[in-house]
Amino acid sequence: MDDVLQNIMDHAVAVAREAGQVVREALCDEKQRDVMTKSSTVDLVTQTDQRVEHLIIQSVKKKFPTHRFIGEESVAAGEACVLTDDPTWIIDPIDGTTNFVHSFPFVAVSIGFSVDKKIQFGVEGKGAFCNGEPLQVSDQEDVRRSIIATEFGSNRETETVEKIFSSLRNILNIPVHGVRGAGTAAVNMCLVASGCVEAYYEVGVHVWDVAAGSVIVEEAGGVLMDVEGGPVDLMSRRIVAANNGTVAHIVKEIDAFSPTRDDAPPTQ
Amino acid sequence: MDDVLQNIMDHAVAVAREAGQVVREALCDEKQRDVMTKSSTVDLVTQTDQRVEHLIIQSVKKKFPTHRFIGEESVAAGEACVLTDDPTWIIDPIDGTTNFVHSFPFVAVSIGFSVDKKIQFGVEGKGAFCNGEPLQVSDQEDVRRSIIATEFGSNRETETVEKIFSSLRNILNIPVHGVRGAGTAAVNMCLVASGCVEAYYEVGVHVWDVAAGSVIVEEAGGVLMDVEGGPVDLMSRRIVAANNGTVAHIVKEIDAFSPTRDDAPPTQ
Repeated sequence: MDDVLQNIMDHAVAVAREAGQVVREALCDEKQRDVMTKSSTVDLVTQTDQRVEHLIIQSVKKKFPTHRFIGEESVAAGEACVLTDDPTWIIDPIDGTTNFVHSFPFVAVSIGFSVDKKIQFGVEGKGAFCNGEPLQVSDQEDVRRSIIATEFGSNRETETVEKIFSSLRNILNIPVHGVRGAGTAAVNMCLVASGCVEAYYEVGVHVWDVAAGSVIVEEAGGVLMDVEGGPVDLMSRRIVAANNGTVAHIVKEIDAFSPTRDDAPPTQ
Repeated sequence: MDDVLQNIMDHAVAVAREAGQVVREALCDEKQRDVMTKSSTVDLVTQTDQRVEHLIIQSVKKKFPTHRFIGEESVAAGEACVLTDDPTWIIDPIDGTTNFVHSFPFVAVSIGFSVDKKIQFGVEGKGAFCNGEPLQVSDQEDVRRSIIATEFGSNRETETVEKIFSSLRNILNIPVHGVRGAGTAAVNMCLVASGCVEAYYEVGVHVWDVAAGSVIVEEAGGVLMDVEGGPVDLMSRRIVAANNGTVAHIVKEIDAFSPTRDDAPPTQ
C-alpha cells in the first residue's frame, strides 16, 4: 500500500474509533436513541446516526477536501448515491440502527474507501484485522456443517417477505447447522471474516452497509458474489460473502430479486 | 432467601463460573469443539458438553449428596427427565452448542434449581444480575416498536419448519422492529431480562434450556407464558418470555404445536 493510501486508511481508522466512542456513549443515553422512521415504520434512524455521519464527513473533509462521500443519512436527506472514479468514502454511521435503538449488542461504524470504483482499504495484502488481531475465514468446505447468516430486513411487502422466507426455507433444509443474524450487515460480514459463520447473504442491503465489510471478507480469505452467482455489484443491493467457493454454492438456494439499485435516479 | 438456599445458590454461581471458564478455554481449542450429532445432523454435541455437565454434577454431588439432576447430556445418555418435589439441579452445560462449535460469540452455562417443582434461584426478591449488575426488562408497551427473539431450532421436518415459518411471518408482519436470535435460549432470555429484546418465544426448547432463564426473566420484571397464552409448563418445550403482558400478546401470532414433552416416558 502506498503512503497516500496508508495515510487515508490511518485517518479512517482514527475517525471510526472516534465515531465508535460517540455511538458507545449514546447507547447509554435514552434521548440519543430516540427514534424517527424513514421508508417504513421499521426503517429507523436516530439523531445519533445523523450526528455521527456529520462528524465523520467533517473530519475527512478537513483533511481530504477533494474527496467525495456516499453516506446513508446524506442519501436519505436527498443527496446523490453515485459511485464515480473519484476517491469516495462510503459511510454507514451506525450499521444496525434497530439494534442501537434497542441496545441489542451488535452495532458497527462502517467506513469503506473507493478509488476507480474499487474498494481500496486493506486490499493490498494487509489482511483483515480486528483490534490488531488478523482475521481468517472458516476452512469448512461442507455447507451442511455451516452456519449461514442473513437478515429479514425492513421491507414488509408481502412479495419481498415471501422471497426472503423461500430462500431461508431452502437454506435450512440443506440442512445447515444453523441460521443466525446479528442485525447488521457489517457485523455479519465480520463474522464471516472471523470464521464464526461460513457465509452471509442478503438482498436489500445498501452500499454503505457492505462497502467496508466486503474488503474485510476478501482480506480474510473469503469470496464475494452476487446472489445469482455472478460478480458482486455493490450498488445492486445484493450480496453473498462466503468463506470459500464451495459454501458459496448456497446461491443455488436463494430466491433472488432485485430491489431498486442504490444508484438509481431519484423518483420525483 | 433462607441460609440453606443462599448456600446452594452461592455454590451454583461458583460452579457456573468454573464451568464457564472451561467452556471459554475449550473455545480456543479446535479439538474440544469436535462435533458428534444427536437426534439429527444439526443437533450437535461435543465432548466438552459432556465433560462440563460431569464437572457440574460431581461438584454439586460432593456438596449436596441427596440432590437430584436433570442434565441435557445425561438425558441424552438415557437418564430419566422427571421433575419431582426433591431439590433438583437442571443443567445445560453449554446452551448454544452449535454456536460453540462455530465460535459464534453467544454461549451460556445454564443452571436452574427447583424444589417442589418450582424454580427457586433468585426468586425471593434478589433480582436478576449479570456479573453483579441488576437487570431490568424493557418498558416498551408497543409491540410494533419491539424486537422479538426466536430460533429456527434443529428440527428440519417439513411440518415443523412450516409452523415455525408461519409464526415468524405473522410476527414480522405485525410489523415489529426486528426479529433476532442469539442461537441459545438462555442468552435470548437474558436479552429479555436485560431489555435488549422485548420478547422471546420458541417451541422445541428443553427444560434445561429455560429453567435458569425463566427465573432470571421474572426477577427482571418480565412475564412467562405458554405459546397459547396459558401458564408456562417448563416440561412442555414451549415458552414465551416477555417484558410485560402487553407485548406477550404476540402469542396470538404464534402457530403453536406440541413436541414430545421432556418428561414423556422414553420410547422403546
